Amino acid sequence: MPSNDGHIAIETLAPFFNPETVAIIGASSDPTKIGGRPIQYMKITGYKGRICPVNPNYPEIQGIPAFKTIGDIDGPVDMALVVVPAPYVADAIRDCVKKGVKAAVILSSGFAEISEEGAAEQQKIARIAAEGGMRIIGPNCMGTLNANTGMIATFGSSMGEPLKVGGISIASQSGAFGAHLFTLARERGYGVNLWATMGNQCDVEFSDCLAYMAQDENTSVVIGYIEGIQNPKKLIESLKIAKASKKPVILMKVGKSEVGTAAAQSHTASLTGSDAVFDTLLRQYDVHRVHSIDEMFDVAYACTAGKFPADKGLGVITVSGGVGVIMADAADEAGLELPPLPERTQKELKQKVPFAGTRNPLDVTAQLVNDPALMLPMFEALLGEGGYKSAICFAAAIGLNEKMMERLTPSFEAIAKKYSDRLIVMSIVSKPEIRKKLEDLGYLIYEDPTRGIKSIAAMTRYGEAFARTGEKMAPPPVPAGSEPVVAGTSINEFDAKKMLVKAGIPAVDERIVSSAAEAARQAEEIGFPIVMKIVSPDIQHKSEIGGVLLNITDAKQAEAGFETLMERARKAVPNAKLEGVLLAPMVSGGVETILGVVRDPVFGPVVMFGLGGIFVEVFKDVTFRIAPFGVDEAREMIREVKGYAMLQGVRGAPPADVEALAQALARLSAYAAANEDTLESIDVNPFIVRPKGEGAVAVDALIIPRAN
Amino acid sequence: MPSNDGHIAIETLAPFFNPETVAIIGASSDPTKIGGRPIQYMKITGYKGRICPVNPNYPEIQGIPAFKTIGDIDGPVDMALVVVPAPYVADAIRDCVKKGVKAAVILSSGFAEISEEGAAEQQKIARIAAEGGMRIIGPNCMGTLNANTGMIATFGSSMGEPLKVGGISIASQSGAFGAHLFTLARERGYGVNLWATMGNQCDVEFSDCLAYMAQDENTSVVIGYIEGIQNPKKLIESLKIAKASKKPVILMKVGKSEVGTAAAQSHTASLTGSDAVFDTLLRQYDVHRVHSIDEMFDVAYACTAGKFPADKGLGVITVSGGVGVIMADAADEAGLELPPLPERTQKELKQKVPFAGTRNPLDVTAQLVNDPALMLPMFEALLGEGGYKSAICFAAAIGLNEKMMERLTPSFEAIAKKYSDRLIVMSIVSKPEIRKKLEDLGYLIYEDPTRGIKSIAAMTRYGEAFARTGEKMAPPPVPAGSEPVVAGTSINEFDAKKMLVKAGIPAVDERIVSSAAEAARQAEEIGFPIVMKIVSPDIQHKSEIGGVLLNITDAKQAEAGFETLMERARKAVPNAKLEGVLLAPMVSGGVETILGVVRDPVFGPVVMFGLGGIFVEVFKDVTFRIAPFGVDEAREMIREVKGYAMLQGVRGAPPADVEALAQALARLSAYAAANEDTLESIDVNPFIVRPKGEGAVAVDALIIPRAN
Repeated sequence: MPSNDGHIAIETLAPFFNPETVAIIGASSDPTKIGGRPIQYMKITGYKGRICPVNPNYPEIQGIPAFKTIGDIDGPVDMALVVVPAPYVADAIRDCVKKGVKAAVILSSGFAEISEEGAAEQQKIARIAAEGGMRIIGPNCMGTLNANTGMIATFGSSMGEPLKVGGISIASQSGAFGAHLFTLARERGYGVNLWATMGNQCDVEFSDCLAYMAQDENTSVVIGYIEGIQNPKKLIESLKIAKASKKPVILMKVGKSEVGTAAAQSHTASLTGSDAVFDTLLRQYDVHRVHSIDEMFDVAYACTAGKFPADKGLGVITVSGGVGVIMADAADEAGLELPPLPERTQKELKQKVPFAGTRNPLDVTAQLVNDPALMLPMFEALLGEGGYKSAICFAAAIGLNEKMMERLTPSFEAIAKKYSDRLIVMSIVSKPEIRKKLEDLGYLIYEDPTRGIKSIAAMTRYGEAFARTGEKMAPPPVPAGSEPVVAGTSINEFDAKKMLVKAGIPAVDERIVSSAAEAARQAEEIGFPIVMKIVSPDIQHKSEIGGVLLNITDAKQAEAGFETLMERARKAVPNAKLEGVLLAPMVSGGVETILGVVRDPVFGPVVMFGLGGIFVEVFKDVTFRIAPFGVDEAREMIREVKGYAMLQGVRGAPPADVEALAQALARLSAYAAANEDTLESIDVNPFIVRPKGEGAVAVDALIIPRAN
Repeated sequence: MPSNDGHIAIETLAPFFNPETVAIIGASSDPTKIGGRPIQYMKITGYKGRICPVNPNYPEIQGIPAFKTIGDIDGPVDMALVVVPAPYVADAIRDCVKKGVKAAVILSSGFAEISEEGAAEQQKIARIAAEGGMRIIGPNCMGTLNANTGMIATFGSSMGEPLKVGGISIASQSGAFGAHLFTLARERGYGVNLWATMGNQCDVEFSDCLAYMAQDENTSVVIGYIEGIQNPKKLIESLKIAKASKKPVILMKVGKSEVGTAAAQSHTASLTGSDAVFDTLLRQYDVHRVHSIDEMFDVAYACTAGKFPADKGLGVITVSGGVGVIMADAADEAGLELPPLPERTQKELKQKVPFAGTRNPLDVTAQLVNDPALMLPMFEALLGEGGYKSAICFAAAIGLNEKMMERLTPSFEAIAKKYSDRLIVMSIVSKPEIRKKLEDLGYLIYEDPTRGIKSIAAMTRYGEAFARTGEKMAPPPVPAGSEPVVAGTSINEFDAKKMLVKAGIPAVDERIVSSAAEAARQAEEIGFPIVMKIVSPDIQHKSEIGGVLLNITDAKQAEAGFETLMERARKAVPNAKLEGVLLAPMVSGGVETILGVVRDPVFGPVVMFGLGGIFVEVFKDVTFRIAPFGVDEAREMIREVKGYAMLQGVRGAPPADVEALAQALARLSAYAAANEDTLESIDVNPFIVRPKGEGAVAVDALIIPRAN
């Protein structure tokens, strides 16, 4: 049964990937059958561990001694691979527990995916395993493999061919898609480390496998594929483990969850889609989310070089001016920069190649083809004098020209050796053997320069994430005196603002007074001009009875105003219960923003930020973060909205107090997280951000607690 | 010398691509030299025309009789390929003219690309040819080829290998990049028809070649690459020829031209970048602009199928639910739709595959692998009963499984035969020979489903463009009484609005009156409420002296108002020249928009549209069209801005009179085009669009004529 806290017990997952003994329950002597394939595959790979076929009908299977039951096996069994039909699985799991097996992969289908009875059977199995202290992957999955050890606990038809070992680990919720990813990796010549598919996830989840793979020393990148999120806390935990291990994660998530519809009460809710929230999570944890398979592998391939420059500056070499511009455009779009080479270097280069562009891109022209000796000094200029941490060189189809490549090899070797710490992409068309030679030297090869640039940009984002010190996610503390949100209550506007203030979020200083003298005194305290309103549960439309006074500019007016309002109220609604008069400052100027909190059914409280009015209504120009987060993250959030310029000052307006806004957002996130079990939503609209140094203030607020 | 009108003399270009006799001036007996390669290449391809090497030193070159001069050749010469060094080119061209050669390709470099002397020499050569009625491609280019006839007038190193003949024609301004594109086409196994590079374009331009290729019957798609635009009228003409021939055009343009800086006088100008204008042109002419080489070939490959469904509905089959969602997401992003299958069909399918998704995507699950007989009914459901004009089927790696493919072949054949008019993409990993088999049957193969979807979307856009009848580009006539813009003059706001009105664009009805009685009468005519302002060249800040009266609601007030304004003006500025009082309606409500015209140095008058205020200032939410255009195009333009919702009515506002707005935009475009030689810019800001049925009106306008 999946636990609901975020804890991931890494050590219990090891037997799925590094077992010393694998038992196959339902082993077949037919190597094309599901129960026969894993055995055949492990014979091919030369798996060094012990393989124990379990089948009551044969003394030997595929040349390996077989056992009638798992209990008959001499010595310990780390992992059992269960391939018997669904009705026999429970007994098999019971036997495993009895034997002291630590982990079972259940390939069999016919459980939660087909019927309620199947789901019940699946729960039963999970319970047996949990009580016996055994972990389960599956049922209805395609299993796991470890290319390094040749341990293959799957029947995937692609796994029968020789494995290419490398740094890519693959975790896929879907077995079929996981197998497809494995096939594609092989077709592209990329080496794999660990591979796992989770199927029905009755115990071990996607996040468990992701975390295990990320901390495995042979993994250089984890590719993940998910369709839905089971335990969000665990997903976050796994991403934290990946980040702590400095392992890049690439994720593809499809499918739309049922978010938002329930929580459509507040304005904020209507803008939150689960996909937006999921995207937010990945941004917060520096995961590269992909939407196509090509991009997935392009980025994974780049990750295997293990170079993550924390620097946006890219050096570009090209044999075609046009492609130089294509690359510059692509770099700009991907968020990379092309700083110019030092003046002196440019001058020296101009002497070597008269017509070359020397700024950056460095345009060598077709001259390179006539004079391959140029390659070395060009790279020296870029990587040595230019000092760029990453570089791309477009050299057309030189990889098809064996003679040329022979002449270039010493240069490529020298560059690779001297600048082994740099991320270097060659964008060339090439024969496979030439490609391999360059890759072995440490170069990455992308035929399409644009894809090369995008991949470099991804490496740079990882690099910046890995280099980031301090805790940008650490939220500010919730003030000691903050009021908890109580489920099942209803909070009026006045109280909502008071609660925000206690939580550290500035709101207009409103007071309710019950005498003219108090009105005068409190008005002084607030500062003029102020607004005065009658407060009565029996008077709905205050302005219609003259119950609102604007622009009160001194204490005398406030004193008189109190009497005026009480009189008007008594006249208009003689039996009304009068609770006093509300005083509030008149807020004018500043930039209108909206802060919100909405409860995502998957990730809990999510903070929204946007500019007010049409920015939200027409442009949906809002951004989200999963609560809680720190001020740094809040600053990023503010810079993300397209209307950010409004806060920097347009049409002669002064720049707004973005710092106060960021503080408020971070505090709101901390307060929301502290009340996650009882809070439905918060809507602070408008939150007026005054000019720099003058702070910001909530003018209106709505806090909706969850129902009991 | 390039002509400056848009005329393209197609017939004069034929000798560059279909010559019966090719003379090589500077022919070499060394088949690796520039002057030797074309001869060697044509011997390999078996070019059926006559090859005439010209070289005074050899009687025979590469086994072919050579001539001392071109004049010595017996019989006519259609095309001369000039490879002699720059200083000898002019004489060679003179000889060609004397011989009556119709076309010359000059590969030699050393002209405008290196110096002013070179440019002068190039002009001289162009003049000689023009006077002799001969066309020139080059100099400093890589020549032309025709894969169908094996005519190869280039030294590109890739052209020596066997050519794959097909429907892709390639026009590239850059020789190096053109050669690279040719190489890539070959590496991907795509067949080529015509190929040309233009180099310095001293006569024949990119647009000429594009037009020629588009009207060639063996071309199924034209790929173009340009760095700058020489003759915009010709480019437009070539795109019109391509459209009339229903030939899809794919264009990559890099480099930023010098637009805008000069014309930064008006607000509009600051938002026009040449790239935005170029993008606009391509949108107007339904060209598919690409930003990466992969996308270029992905789309070109799809075009070769020759199927352009004018229908956004796509049918999807998948063996993986997850990939089904990936494809649905990608389709949505690319502007395609996934209409559901008919209910009855879905029911029938459910009986065949119990667990399949049957709506669309049609999720066959891995069941297809167990039961390949499902393929046929699945496609029948989609293409027959569903009636989709295009379909994509993701079937993982079945293309690697020869046995499976053997069993599937009859189904693939039957589907291809029965639905030969449909665009069908198979998204599979496959062996080259299996891929080829399917392609020969008419299927398109994309390994990555997302790229397949994007390419289908491109075909659909072409289909809709080809199917479009009527002239969406035909502008409304400019009204007979419209006033021409006169260069070197200055136009005040009052006159500008009058000119707009005469051009058919509604503006506020302003009058200047010189007596109180006239004020009363004219105010009645305009309709109340009105605004009154003193008119004097000597009074700059009218409101400071009380020279503006708002909200005049009847004739009496207007009469009195006249006297008040004259009196105030006389008092404040005793010697001021008073020209009268301006009356204008007070405009309130409606949606603020901005219409603009800016002169692009390349494409002439360009019309801009955007919503007023922050929409333009913060979001740069504007769109452009090259003038003139029709009302349909104007409607598209309006729908394009992100703030379009403002015009549809938000926050309870009624929908705006979009029709009146579209009329105004189209008329503005017609007026701008009619005055293209004298007009610098027009800025109509704000142009208030009233609720539906109530029209729209220019409240302020600025017309800037060009300097003399």
